[in-house]
Amino acid sequence: MEATAQEVDSVVRAAHATREALADRAVRAAFLRAAADRLEAAKDQLVEVADAETALGPVRLTGELARTCYQLRAFAGIVDEGAFLDVVINHPDDTATPPVPDLRRYKVPLGVVAVYSASNFPFAFSVAGGDTASALAAGCPVVVKAHPDHPALSELVAHVLRAAAAEHGIDQAVVGLVHGFEAGVELIKHPLVAAAGFTGSIRGGRALFDAAAARPVPIPFHGELGSLNPVLVTEAAAAERAEAIGAGLAGSMTLGVGQFCVKPGLVLVPSGAAGDGLLKSLTDAVSDTEAGVLLDHRMRDNFIAGVAERAELPDVESPVTPGAGGEHTVSAGFLTVPAEKLASEGAYDLLLEECFGPVTVVARYESEDEAKAVLSRLPGNLTATVQLSEEEAAGQGRGAELLAELTPLAGRVLVNGWPTGVAVAPAQHHGGPYPATTSTSTSVGGTAIERWLRPVVYQNAPEALLPPELRDDNPLGLPRRFNNNLER
Amino acid sequence: MEATAQEVDSVVRAAHATREALADRAVRAAFLRAAADRLEAAKDQLVEVADAETALGPVRLTGELARTCYQLRAFAGIVDEGAFLDVVINHPDDTATPPVPDLRRYKVPLGVVAVYSASNFPFAFSVAGGDTASALAAGCPVVVKAHPDHPALSELVAHVLRAAAAEHGIDQAVVGLVHGFEAGVELIKHPLVAAAGFTGSIRGGRALFDAAAARPVPIPFHGELGSLNPVLVTEAAAAERAEAIGAGLAGSMTLGVGQFCVKPGLVLVPSGAAGDGLLKSLTDAVSDTEAGVLLDHRMRDNFIAGVAERAELPDVESPVTPGAGGEHTVSAGFLTVPAEKLASEGAYDLLLEECFGPVTVVARYESEDEAKAVLSRLPGNLTATVQLSEEEAAGQGRGAELLAELTPLAGRVLVNGWPTGVAVAPAQHHGGPYPATTSTSTSVGGTAIERWLRPVVYQNAPEALLPPELRDDNPLGLPRRFNNNLER
Repeated sequence: MEATAQEVDSVVRAAHATREALADRAVRAAFLRAAADRLEAAKDQLVEVADAETALGPVRLTGELARTCYQLRAFAGIVDEGAFLDVVINHPDDTATPPVPDLRRYKVPLGVVAVYSASNFPFAFSVAGGDTASALAAGCPVVVKAHPDHPALSELVAHVLRAAAAEHGIDQAVVGLVHGFEAGVELIKHPLVAAAGFTGSIRGGRALFDAAAARPVPIPFHGELGSLNPVLVTEAAAAERAEAIGAGLAGSMTLGVGQFCVKPGLVLVPSGAAGDGLLKSLTDAVSDTEAGVLLDHRMRDNFIAGVAERAELPDVESPVTPGAGGEHTVSAGFLTVPAEKLASEGAYDLLLEECFGPVTVVARYESEDEAKAVLSRLPGNLTATVQLSEEEAAGQGRGAELLAELTPLAGRVLVNGWPTGVAVAPAQHHGGPYPATTSTSTSVGGTAIERWLRPVVYQNAPEALLPPELRDDNPLGLPRRFNNNLER
Repeated sequence: MEATAQEVDSVVRAAHATREALADRAVRAAFLRAAADRLEAAKDQLVEVADAETALGPVRLTGELARTCYQLRAFAGIVDEGAFLDVVINHPDDTATPPVPDLRRYKVPLGVVAVYSASNFPFAFSVAGGDTASALAAGCPVVVKAHPDHPALSELVAHVLRAAAAEHGIDQAVVGLVHGFEAGVELIKHPLVAAAGFTGSIRGGRALFDAAAARPVPIPFHGELGSLNPVLVTEAAAAERAEAIGAGLAGSMTLGVGQFCVKPGLVLVPSGAAGDGLLKSLTDAVSDTEAGVLLDHRMRDNFIAGVAERAELPDVESPVTPGAGGEHTVSAGFLTVPAEKLASEGAYDLLLEECFGPVTVVARYESEDEAKAVLSRLPGNLTATVQLSEEEAAGQGRGAELLAELTPLAGRVLVNGWPTGVAVAPAQHHGGPYPATTSTSTSVGGTAIERWLRPVVYQNAPEALLPPELRDDNPLGLPRRFNNNLER
């Protein structure tokens, strides 16, 4: 049922009215934990409905649900700790220029957050996913725009979250849910929507980003759009373990039928025997991969067309041809191209665009300079990876230099690993230069909460009027910066 | 000399090329301190040129220069401390869902920052102002678009900064400077410009914000645009110290000929005898204020026209009429209006728009609900102030409630003070909901540095390849989050 503009309005207003109940940190931590408990309790039904709608399979979906619950509890812990409030207190200081009055700053929630959920993660980046968990943790009600690939699951998960809210005295409207393309457009324009999180395509994300920026009152739009996730294999690494790298790459690019935002989409492999060996290993492993079902038919059509268009370019070869598998499936494969073709603007730029599904492009380079020339042309990415030899990894050689070379390209830089798999951890950063992300923020990990907050400072407010977070005696035991000393 | 598009391009490219030299934190801290030293050494000449261009007077300008130098040194201290790098390290953890690999995150500079300087602060919000100081502290070269009200001073200050850079081995192109409206437009579109800071009008700021968002690769635009800075005087406060409040308000609204972004532009005063007394005191103090010179003729014209348009509204009175003073000056004054006129949409909304210069609007309210109805209609502000009685400030009464009521309106909330005067301190927040600011950031205080950084995480990178900031043994002694323990 697609929501009308009026329905969107009433969902947003109802969500907005729940802010008071979310203001208590203990209550919202309890809410987040209850949500995790209830999702786990409903696991069998949730996985069944999710599998029926997405065909991702019970193993992957069970794992994704576990991750989602872990994430909700991680944010409950972050709420408890309170470091995210970023408390800074300055007592008056007449020696400063100009003199400093009593100033006490912390962060407050922005208001209702619109969450645009993803097709490829029906749990972890959808109704109860990272955007929702971090927004609720920040004290912001959410209104989720359901992804059309899993509407029933979206309703079910929202129902579970609402029950958890009610258990802790929060009105169920704290998690709103709307369906429909037009509803999503209405949502981003609603005056009471204060920020938005998005996971999806560059086209859809950019349209919403533009709408958010064009509002009479623009709002922050944290979109994770698309990423090529380049991998550089050094000469020495290829010489040392061509077979392992080929097999590892095959596993990463075909994981989840290639439907991850961090799928390696461009791999720079040296020309010559070692690189040939790597391709042989990749060929063997990819050939052994079973055909898989993509999330929906539109994606399957785009994958088949996208692969075909790329394969038609002169000098592009497909040692294992990706494309239509069975009637509903697609088969994995990869393309090769001389790296020099990618080193300057032209028709080959198509190969520098993400192609969703189980395909990657292997660019063979003649020299490290050629490889660097390709890297320098890439748009922003979520990840960038370098495969180094043992010696290079130990600091003998140019490993550090290559790491520095990859840093401007991405938000996460990996050594001798594969980008698929995004851990939920305080240090995580899942974001990167545009178009990977539309802001400098992360959608995974502890600091995802920062997206939904803004600072407020109180000047010369008497202790009696201050919230406990800002009192000298620190009754809540918060980590803080107090007269420029870091207290933990 | 207005810069051509080609000149802007070459200035940006030259600035971009200096990033390497800025990468060393010790070097850039020394550069910032040298800049402060050299600005102080050139004080006499700088103040003379600034006064000739702005007519702000040597006392104010000497103070502003001192503030500017203090700010540069404060950012040098922030660079030394390194907390802004936001280091977070997670060792592998197989008990997490999914398991956590070795992850080490910190923040890296975004790249070249475009700084649009202000008319009203030729030092503190211009070439060597907060945007420049915080960007250089973050490791970002800057290209400043000079304000046309003080082009000679802009050149002089840039010259001083460049000499300081050269002293520390940084190419002088690290501080670029361009003049001209079109040059400013070119600058925001330049592919190598990674972020922008702006202080100025809503119209100009919004146009640049829109241009930043419309780029093929959108960039963060941190603009401080406009603010009404509401003040609420409670019944009890008016009863207790009408005279002092009236005099304090007069001082704040006429300070610097009313040319501060934090000038109180709307004051809610209770009807009745106590409020009348406040107005009497305000009238006396404002009448005693000497006529002053505004920054340029355009501003003087806008002020005179803006005041006249507001004064023409029915039921608006002007106990002290602001407007043209002498041939070049303007005289301070204020308008009064029944608060109920502002409680709903209509012609009176003009009174809720900032009017730059020595004027404020006093809205007389019949009940606290009426006052709150006006507050609820305000756009975002840099500051909001409440004048409370001694009892209310001590927590007897509704002081805390009023503080909470003002919090959504602004980035800085003051009790029994005046918003003019923005201290440079770690706890400071100079920003607020749109249109006060186009982002959730601050342009004054330690956290202003956050605007010019983005996080990067390294996954499974061997210690030998990591920058020292991310090594286990913490050779630089940085504050950090290490396996989820806060180390300071």
